[in-house]
Amino acid sequence: MATMREVAKLAGVSVATVSRVLNQNGYVNQETEKRVKEAIQTLNYKPNEVARSLYKKSSRTIGLIVPDISNPFFPELVRAVEDVMNIYDYTVILCNSDEKGDKEKEYIDILKQRYVDGIILTTNQLTSEELSDINVPVVVLDRPLDHSFPSVVANNYEGARMATNYLYKQGCRRIAHIQGPLHVVNALERFRGYQDEMKSLGLWDETLVFIGNYQMSEAKIATMEALTNQKIDGIFAGNDVMAAGALKAAQQLGLRVPEDLAIIGYDNIPLAEMTTPELTTISQPIYDMGAIAARLLVKKIEGKPIDQIHHVLPVKLVRRESTR
Amino acid sequence: MATMREVAKLAGVSVATVSRVLNQNGYVNQETEKRVKEAIQTLNYKPNEVARSLYKKSSRTIGLIVPDISNPFFPELVRAVEDVMNIYDYTVILCNSDEKGDKEKEYIDILKQRYVDGIILTTNQLTSEELSDINVPVVVLDRPLDHSFPSVVANNYEGARMATNYLYKQGCRRIAHIQGPLHVVNALERFRGYQDEMKSLGLWDETLVFIGNYQMSEAKIATMEALTNQKIDGIFAGNDVMAAGALKAAQQLGLRVPEDLAIIGYDNIPLAEMTTPELTTISQPIYDMGAIAARLLVKKIEGKPIDQIHHVLPVKLVRRESTR
Repeated sequence: MATMREVAKLAGVSVATVSRVLNQNGYVNQETEKRVKEAIQTLNYKPNEVARSLYKKSSRTIGLIVPDISNPFFPELVRAVEDVMNIYDYTVILCNSDEKGDKEKEYIDILKQRYVDGIILTTNQLTSEELSDINVPVVVLDRPLDHSFPSVVANNYEGARMATNYLYKQGCRRIAHIQGPLHVVNALERFRGYQDEMKSLGLWDETLVFIGNYQMSEAKIATMEALTNQKIDGIFAGNDVMAAGALKAAQQLGLRVPEDLAIIGYDNIPLAEMTTPELTTISQPIYDMGAIAARLLVKKIEGKPIDQIHHVLPVKLVRRESTR
Repeated sequence: MATMREVAKLAGVSVATVSRVLNQNGYVNQETEKRVKEAIQTLNYKPNEVARSLYKKSSRTIGLIVPDISNPFFPELVRAVEDVMNIYDYTVILCNSDEKGDKEKEYIDILKQRYVDGIILTTNQLTSEELSDINVPVVVLDRPLDHSFPSVVANNYEGARMATNYLYKQGCRRIAHIQGPLHVVNALERFRGYQDEMKSLGLWDETLVFIGNYQMSEAKIATMEALTNQKIDGIFAGNDVMAAGALKAAQQLGLRVPEDLAIIGYDNIPLAEMTTPELTTISQPIYDMGAIAARLLVKKIEGKPIDQIHHVLPVKLVRRESTR
């Protein structure tokens, strides 16, 4: 590999001049800059990124902290972030925090030691206060903290109202909700949307709410129990994975979906099309969420103006076979 | 944050001595080393990883190149690599190559510019020859190249024979195979296993093979066509996603699974338990594959002896509801 010294020699300038051209700082006259750039091309010189990052305190790398990449919501989100970052010439360090505050803090420390240029957080174990001295650009994705960081979320509250109302319009009157983990903001917002819609329909009954923790097996067990103990004609599950669990429970009890029981999920992950019947669901623009967060972070890193700090993306109902 | 200079001052030694302790090279007497380590702890000094990586040409970061994280086989593999790397204090840069040789080459260049300590490759677009001047430790995962790099794969050939033979034992005689992409080694090995087993059973018939490219929708279309045109009583799909597609096709044509048609998948991803009926499949030890590859890479990076260069992990049949 060619060195900076060789570039300087070929261009007939000092190493310091080459460095100024590479880092685009200090004065270099146009003619000289052209010669340096030609020498870089001729020698196929690749700047040593580590040396550059030490100098610029930048590594052209960002950190992306997710709860768990094996949760089927996250692969598409991660893919979107990586795609966009790749366009802007940044690499992405992936970290799985398992929703643990300690692990998040540890990762943030490690990422800062690596001089990442920014961090995208999809968790909410840490408060804005704990993050206040983070000192690198941060964008919050999927799970908003408060208003101190740029954020991208989908409209969980509206999505939940939409799902509940759709079941009502289908004739369901005893509409149950399978709730995600109580400490996860989007799960709470979906619960709130369900609750408000049920109240406004005059159907609210707290015994219709049960916990599935975003897990298929837990949702299946909870649904079996609920269907055995009380009359339920519709289920709004807080995510598609739990909707698949509810579907299994119904089938095991000999109920027909959607004739005896309508089910609606949330997320529109690929799984929603793989079950039989296929799941009606609230579609989140997962890829767009990741892509917008990545673009926001690039703008923050590069000090460019940001038109809109907080993005709440619309969701939509996707009708399939698990509702009438 | 404390600086190296402050550590040196507190320990009463030179900055060069602190550097020798941190980088574990050069002679430092035991007493001095102890004092330096105490000073590091007292001041909660965090070495500047970028400066260290420049000096050591190491970044405590590895690159992980996968075809596409949104392919449901990869999240668990990626998770395993990250879990193990985290234990050894390495971070993981994730790259999606989309099975494109150009993109792989580009990522390898970028990763080398970032001074990654090693690379795990789960793709096989590049030949060993093209990788011969790569100059960083490489471990090949899931898709073997040849014998020049340490590798971890599951036994695709045996798994395919096992699946085919199981369908035979269930009474199937017209056993079709839905094949993955022709340029992917594991897809070809699964095809070879199927072919050899069918030959040894005296059932080989090339018209029973069709292409699904590891995609659900393609597999569904191919299965619809195949089931309409000829007699088939068993399907061995090259992965679970295609098995889910075959299941949909069968249900759409009014066939009962497993009574009229038995279906067996490959991989044992979470999806296999989410369909109705649940999929019988060949289970790959996906997490173990990732974890073993990560440990191999750490050993290579740290120059430790490696007992076994090539790992071919056993697979097993998981009986569920899509076979009798």
